[in-house]
Amino acid sequence: MSHTLSETLTVDLGSRSYPIVIGSRLLPQLGAYLQPLLPGRQVAIVSNTTVAPLYLEQVEEALQQQGFATLAILLPDGEAYKTWPHLQTLFDALIQNHFERSATLLALGGGVVGDMTGFAAATFLRGVNFVQIPTTLLAQVDASVGGKTGINHALGKNLIGAFYQPRQVLIDVQTLTTLPVRERLAGLAEVIKYGIIWDETFFQRLERDLDGLLLLQQELLIETIRTCCTIKAAVVAADERESEGGHRALLNLGHTFGHAIETLSGYGQLLHGEAVAMGMVMAADLSHRLGLCGAEAVARIRQLLARCGLPLQAPAFPVDAYLEAMGRDKKVLDGALRLVLVQAIGQAVIRRDIPLESVRQTIQQHLQATGKPV
Amino acid sequence: MSHTLSETLTVDLGSRSYPIVIGSRLLPQLGAYLQPLLPGRQVAIVSNTTVAPLYLEQVEEALQQQGFATLAILLPDGEAYKTWPHLQTLFDALIQNHFERSATLLALGGGVVGDMTGFAAATFLRGVNFVQIPTTLLAQVDASVGGKTGINHALGKNLIGAFYQPRQVLIDVQTLTTLPVRERLAGLAEVIKYGIIWDETFFQRLERDLDGLLLLQQELLIETIRTCCTIKAAVVAADERESEGGHRALLNLGHTFGHAIETLSGYGQLLHGEAVAMGMVMAADLSHRLGLCGAEAVARIRQLLARCGLPLQAPAFPVDAYLEAMGRDKKVLDGALRLVLVQAIGQAVIRRDIPLESVRQTIQQHLQATGKPV
Repeated sequence: MSHTLSETLTVDLGSRSYPIVIGSRLLPQLGAYLQPLLPGRQVAIVSNTTVAPLYLEQVEEALQQQGFATLAILLPDGEAYKTWPHLQTLFDALIQNHFERSATLLALGGGVVGDMTGFAAATFLRGVNFVQIPTTLLAQVDASVGGKTGINHALGKNLIGAFYQPRQVLIDVQTLTTLPVRERLAGLAEVIKYGIIWDETFFQRLERDLDGLLLLQQELLIETIRTCCTIKAAVVAADERESEGGHRALLNLGHTFGHAIETLSGYGQLLHGEAVAMGMVMAADLSHRLGLCGAEAVARIRQLLARCGLPLQAPAFPVDAYLEAMGRDKKVLDGALRLVLVQAIGQAVIRRDIPLESVRQTIQQHLQATGKPV
Repeated sequence: MSHTLSETLTVDLGSRSYPIVIGSRLLPQLGAYLQPLLPGRQVAIVSNTTVAPLYLEQVEEALQQQGFATLAILLPDGEAYKTWPHLQTLFDALIQNHFERSATLLALGGGVVGDMTGFAAATFLRGVNFVQIPTTLLAQVDASVGGKTGINHALGKNLIGAFYQPRQVLIDVQTLTTLPVRERLAGLAEVIKYGIIWDETFFQRLERDLDGLLLLQQELLIETIRTCCTIKAAVVAADERESEGGHRALLNLGHTFGHAIETLSGYGQLLHGEAVAMGMVMAADLSHRLGLCGAEAVARIRQLLARCGLPLQAPAFPVDAYLEAMGRDKKVLDGALRLVLVQAIGQAVIRRDIPLESVRQTIQQHLQATGKPV
């Protein structure tokens, strides 16, 4: 395998277009990648206390070799810390170190680090440069591409945030070798999502290649992540701000149920990908119940997720608690519940006409079916 | 005088262009103005405890007549409250009232209300609609146009924020009749700024018409505000995000000194326009000292500001404290102090090569000259 195996995609957003570089052992070349892109010399590397011991030194060296002045800012690890007080400590560090408008914030970590760093970049001095180095599979295929940034509110996830695009996303699949297995599997839930909503052939490839992915075969990882990012880039380019009537909301398959599951469970109990896996199963079940797709599609989705070892049974909370939590989700428009449903593997649809009663029945049935084999 | 006297300008920003409507007795027609612009029915009217008793009921009625559902959110009055905790109470109210992405936040008040409401609109659910109804002269000629939003940080003003454009700005000069005189005068500092940086003819008109403005003659107010907004709209359209090398920074004449004065004095001691007046005098003095403009220009600037009853002598703090506070300001690029200086009345220039020593001398001299007649 080549030492510099890499591929580059572009997210096409006019003057805000940016490259996604995907490869293996890219971190040592980071400075060279960023050199032509960034106007200023100040780079704050934002990471967390789990990722920093593994990769911070390498990233600092790669940047310093190219003349960048680096500042490391470490956050505690976990969704529970994606809140204003921790964002505030980030701002404090930037201000105390006299960071200027030409500076860059570089996110080194998973989705939480990326979301917080991106929101900090969007709002510090009304906007500074932003670079994403996602180190989890979930962040590599989803969170790092597309410009969604933000923090949580006590009453719901990601309620405060901004659309803010990075200058570059650099994905080094080598970082997956240090990722805990549970997080890798949770990331696969979002990978599988792309197959369900967009590309049946990709879903079939995943059915065929899953074992190789679980073994972290590098070429297979690069190819898989490239496919996910290509789909996401196309969706984002066509509908950057998730407009009414746009396609970006397709990416939320399983997320309205999933966010409710996360909210009710309390942040930090379930990984985002795990909640999304449960949510996709519920969305598929609802689709079948409404006559949108056949039972085989539901079964294939359940099977592939189950092969990843993902939990598919949502935790038992009162149905009304689920509905209340879903109503607080952003994907609600003018009082009607908007959900992404499955018509077939490779084909999802946004529906805003779903009777609340059907959703209630789906939750009820799903929660009751605790003994059902996956 | 006609009952519906009004003029409409457009801020030209492509798909984000928006109208500025300037007139007298416009508030009762607010609902009709917004009806065709806003996609959703939910409107949160954000105001403060000073402005709300004067205009909230009128605004609520005008909106409800057109079928909008309104929610009033009141903030305490003053720059000292332009902070995260108060923004948080705004978010809490929006979430508890199930505000959705199609909703609108309407700022009814001065610059603080506009900045906070705009930042809330920029970041709630990653962006909802925003409308500005500025009720102070300062906000009408400056803060409400151009999309700068944000909050203060303990270490400096407006350090956290976003560029986020409103869907409409509606300026009713009738609201100036209830504005305290001191705030009216402070607003005139920003009016005069436009003459200094952009338009000598306008400066001459101000020298001629100042007494009428001080008496709140409606046509004169509309004409004057229209000129200010036209200049600001042109500057913003050409350089929305205050880029390196762009002209938007010209609008910051007096602001780097002014922000330092505000920071050192503590928020709430001086009005923004008062600090800017002092800052413009310091910038003019520095310009003359560097040989950029003649003594007559400095004298005309001082005289016009003095006729408004504005304080022109900056408060006595140590020079190093000034320099430190200026260094924390956003208008610093790569370590060099960037300042807007005056070449002539109607012609300002952005300079980034100013020796720190000259700035030090200016501050020193300005502070020492406490007995100097204005």
